[in-house]
Amino acid sequence: MRPIPAFVRAALAVALFAAPLAAQEQKPVAAPDPDAVMLRKLYDAALVDSPVYEQLRELTEKFPGRLAGSHNLEGAVQWTHALLEKQGADRTELQPVMVPHWERGPKESVSLLPPAGVKGEAVALTAVALGGSVPTPADGLRAGVVELRSLDELKTADVRGKIVFFNRPMKQHHASAGPAYGEAGDARNRGPAEAAKHGAVGVVIHSVTHAHDDVPHTGATTYLPDVPRIPAAALSALASERLSAALAREPALQLELRIHSQWFDDAPSHNVIAELRGSEHPEQVILVGGHLDSWDIAPGAHDDGAGVIESIDVLRILKAVGYQPKHTIRCVLFTNEENGTRGAVAYSTAVRERKEQHLLALETDSGGYQAHGFNLGNPAGDAHLKAARWLELFRPYGIYFFVAGRGGVDVNPLLVQGTTVAGLMPDSQRYFDIHHTAEDSIDKVNPRELRLSAGALAALVYLVDQHGL
Amino acid sequence: MRPIPAFVRAALAVALFAAPLAAQEQKPVAAPDPDAVMLRKLYDAALVDSPVYEQLRELTEKFPGRLAGSHNLEGAVQWTHALLEKQGADRTELQPVMVPHWERGPKESVSLLPPAGVKGEAVALTAVALGGSVPTPADGLRAGVVELRSLDELKTADVRGKIVFFNRPMKQHHASAGPAYGEAGDARNRGPAEAAKHGAVGVVIHSVTHAHDDVPHTGATTYLPDVPRIPAAALSALASERLSAALAREPALQLELRIHSQWFDDAPSHNVIAELRGSEHPEQVILVGGHLDSWDIAPGAHDDGAGVIESIDVLRILKAVGYQPKHTIRCVLFTNEENGTRGAVAYSTAVRERKEQHLLALETDSGGYQAHGFNLGNPAGDAHLKAARWLELFRPYGIYFFVAGRGGVDVNPLLVQGTTVAGLMPDSQRYFDIHHTAEDSIDKVNPRELRLSAGALAALVYLVDQHGL
Repeated sequence: MRPIPAFVRAALAVALFAAPLAAQEQKPVAAPDPDAVMLRKLYDAALVDSPVYEQLRELTEKFPGRLAGSHNLEGAVQWTHALLEKQGADRTELQPVMVPHWERGPKESVSLLPPAGVKGEAVALTAVALGGSVPTPADGLRAGVVELRSLDELKTADVRGKIVFFNRPMKQHHASAGPAYGEAGDARNRGPAEAAKHGAVGVVIHSVTHAHDDVPHTGATTYLPDVPRIPAAALSALASERLSAALAREPALQLELRIHSQWFDDAPSHNVIAELRGSEHPEQVILVGGHLDSWDIAPGAHDDGAGVIESIDVLRILKAVGYQPKHTIRCVLFTNEENGTRGAVAYSTAVRERKEQHLLALETDSGGYQAHGFNLGNPAGDAHLKAARWLELFRPYGIYFFVAGRGGVDVNPLLVQGTTVAGLMPDSQRYFDIHHTAEDSIDKVNPRELRLSAGALAALVYLVDQHGL
Repeated sequence: MRPIPAFVRAALAVALFAAPLAAQEQKPVAAPDPDAVMLRKLYDAALVDSPVYEQLRELTEKFPGRLAGSHNLEGAVQWTHALLEKQGADRTELQPVMVPHWERGPKESVSLLPPAGVKGEAVALTAVALGGSVPTPADGLRAGVVELRSLDELKTADVRGKIVFFNRPMKQHHASAGPAYGEAGDARNRGPAEAAKHGAVGVVIHSVTHAHDDVPHTGATTYLPDVPRIPAAALSALASERLSAALAREPALQLELRIHSQWFDDAPSHNVIAELRGSEHPEQVILVGGHLDSWDIAPGAHDDGAGVIESIDVLRILKAVGYQPKHTIRCVLFTNEENGTRGAVAYSTAVRERKEQHLLALETDSGGYQAHGFNLGNPAGDAHLKAARWLELFRPYGIYFFVAGRGGVDVNPLLVQGTTVAGLMPDSQRYFDIHHTAEDSIDKVNPRELRLSAGALAALVYLVDQHGL
C-alpha cells in the first residue's frame, strides 16, 4: 500500500466497513437502532484500552502447562478467581471437581534403530508422548515398524508385535481446518487402542497438524476396556517424513520408544464461576466460558487461555458500559476439558440438580484468532436461524454467519438438557499449527483479534439478554 | 479441544463448513451446480500440493527491499517473468516503465538530546526515515520538539524552527484496521509538508501501526511545490512513548535527526505481464495482479509478495484443472506502487492507447492473510451487487461478502476508464503490525491462508469469465 491512494482507499474503507453490503441498500433511518448503538459501545469497550492481551500474557507465562492435576492448573484457578472478583462480579464460586491426574514424566524419546542384529547408531526423532499414554519399560520398547495411512489399513496389515506408524497428516483440501483435524485425529484418539486390538505393541503418529515443521503435537488418546494399553507418541511432521523415508529404504528398521509417564489418583480441581446478577430474571442464566486447563507441554494461549480471558472480559465490558443485565450473566471457566471433561460434567450435573435455567451457554475453544461467526444449537435445531436476524448488527464488526452447531465440549452436556448452546468460530487456519504444542504461546496471539472476540461475545450476550433466542 | 468431543465437533464441522447457513435452508438438488463443481476443483488445485508458500519464500529471501530503482526490484522482475514462462503462459511481456529512484543511504538516526546548552548524553530512538525524505545536513539536524496529536493542531501551535512530533498511533476502536490506517496515515503522508508550511524544520511521527513494539514503519511522504522539503522519520511505538514521556518531563529537550538519503535520476523498471489467451474473446481481458515493489527495509512478504505470488498462481490453478478460458486471463505484476505508481500509470495508458477492453481488473494488495470478501467498483456502482449472486458458491470457502470499493491503487486508473475493478479483502488486524517494516517476512505468512486467497482469486476470475459482471 502507498500513502496517497491508501488515503483514498482508507476513506473508502471507512464507508465500506461502516456500511457493508446490506446496509448500503437500506434507506437511512431517523433514529439509530438502540441495539446498534449498544453494540458500538460494547465494541468500544472491548477494543479501546483493553486489558485482555496483558491478562493472557500473565495467565500463560505464570501458569503454562495447566494440565489436570497440576500445580499450575490450580494456580490458574486462583488467579482467574481473583481477577473475576476484581472485575466486580456479584457472586463468585469455586465449584469442586475431582480430575484425572496423568504426568508425562522425564526424558521421553522416540529413536530410529537399525534392523535387529544390525549395528548402527540410534537417530532421535522429535516426538512427544500422547496424553494418557502408558509408559514403556524403563529401558524402552523396541520393535519393527508398520507404516499405515489410516485405521482402516489395520484390517489387512500384519501389525503383531510391531509399532504402528500412522502417517496421517491433516488433509489440505478442506477450506476450514476443523474437518481436517477431525479426520486425521482418529489416529491419535483411537489409533493406539485399535492397533492394540490387532496385536501391535506401540504406536507413533504423524502429529495432527497442517504445519510442516519439527514441532510435535500431543493430545489425548483413549484406551478401551479389555484391550491392551500400548504406549503411544506423536512425531513432528518433519520427523514423520524422516521415518517414512527411512522405512522406504529399510523396511526392517526398528523404533525405540521411551515413555516414563504415570497415572496418579484423581486430584482436586475447580470450575471457576462468576456472575453479574440479573435485574429481572436473576434465576435465568446466560453463560459465557472457556476452559482453564491446557496440555502439559503447552502455555495454552490459544487453547484455551484466549477463551478464558475473553469470557472474563465480557463481564468487564458489560460493567464498563454500565449495562444492567435482565438475566444473570455467568462466566464459567471449566477445568479438565483436555483429558476428562470432568468440569463440564460437574457443571451440567449441578445445573440439573439445582434446576437452573440457562437461556444460552456460549463457549470459546477454537483459538484467539479473528472470529467471523458463531455456531448455535438447540433441541429444535433452529437457534442459528433465529440468531440470523442479528447479522446486520454484527456485520460492521466482521461477524458474517450463524451456523448450526453445538457450542463446544464444555457446554455440550447442557444442550442435552434443552439449553441453547453456542460457540465462537475464529479463523481456523493457524490454530492447528500450534495446537497442543509448546508453541501455543502469547506471541502467536494478536491483541486486536483477541479484543474483537471479546466484543463479539459481549454483543451476543447482550442481544440474548435483551431479546432471547 | 479434546479428542473424543473434538471428533463429534469435527464431524459436525464438516457438515457446517460444507453446508453453511443458506445452503442448509435449500432443498437438495438433483444435479450439482457446474459452477460449484468447478469451484471445488479450483480450490483443490489451490490447496493441495500448492507451490505458493515456497515461491513466496524464494521471492522475499532472494529479493527483499524491492524498492523502485533497486537491483532487487529488477531481480524480482526477471524472477517472476521466468516463473510465469514456466507456468505455461501463452504470452509474456516486460512493459518498460521509468520509476523514481530514492535511496535511504547509511546510518540514519534519531536521538534525544538535552536542552540547548545543557550537557548530557544522546539517547538513540528506534526510527527509520520516511520514504522520499530529503537528507539532513551531514552532521545532523538539531532542534527543539513540539508534540502534536493531529495535523489540525498545526493551526494553533508555534512550530517555527522546531521538529514536529506527530504522536498519532492508529486508533483502536475501528473493527477493521483499514480506516485506522487512513486516519493516522495523514501524519506520514502530509505531515512533513504541512509542518513545513508552518515553519517546522523537521518531522518525526509515531509509526502508522496498531502494534506496541520497537519496530519502526516507513512509507512515503509527499512534499508540496513551493513548500520547503524538511527531513522526516518514523519512530517505533515504544520510541514514541519514550519521547512523549521525556517531553513531559523536559519540554526543552532537543532531537537530532541524521538522514543521508539521496534522490537519483529515474531508473528503468518493468511491469511483468503474462496471459492465458481466451478461446472466444481473446481481445477481452480479465486482469489479476499485485505489485512487485516493496519498501527498501521490507522483505515485502505481505506487501505485496503475497499478491504477486497469488496472482501468478491463478494461471497455474486454471491450467491445473484444464480450464480453457473464454476471455484472456492476464496476470499483471505492477512496478513502483509504493512511491510513484508509475507502473499503474504506464499500464492504464497502454490499455487506453491499445484500446484494450478489460472485463475485470482484480488486485490483491492488503496482505496474505485469510480473505473473507472482495470489494468491487464500476462506473454504475453496482458491481458488488451483481457479484453478490455468487455468495452461496463462495461460502463453503469462507468468502462472505462483496462490498463497494475500487480494487486497489494499481487497478484504480482502469476504473476511471470504465472498467470494473476489484480487490481481495483479507483480514486486516495483523497487516499494520508489520506493514512497511523489516518484519514483513515469510514467517508472518500462513501457507494455508495464502493458498486460500489464490483459490478465491481463481474462483472469481472463473466466474467472471463464465458469466460476466
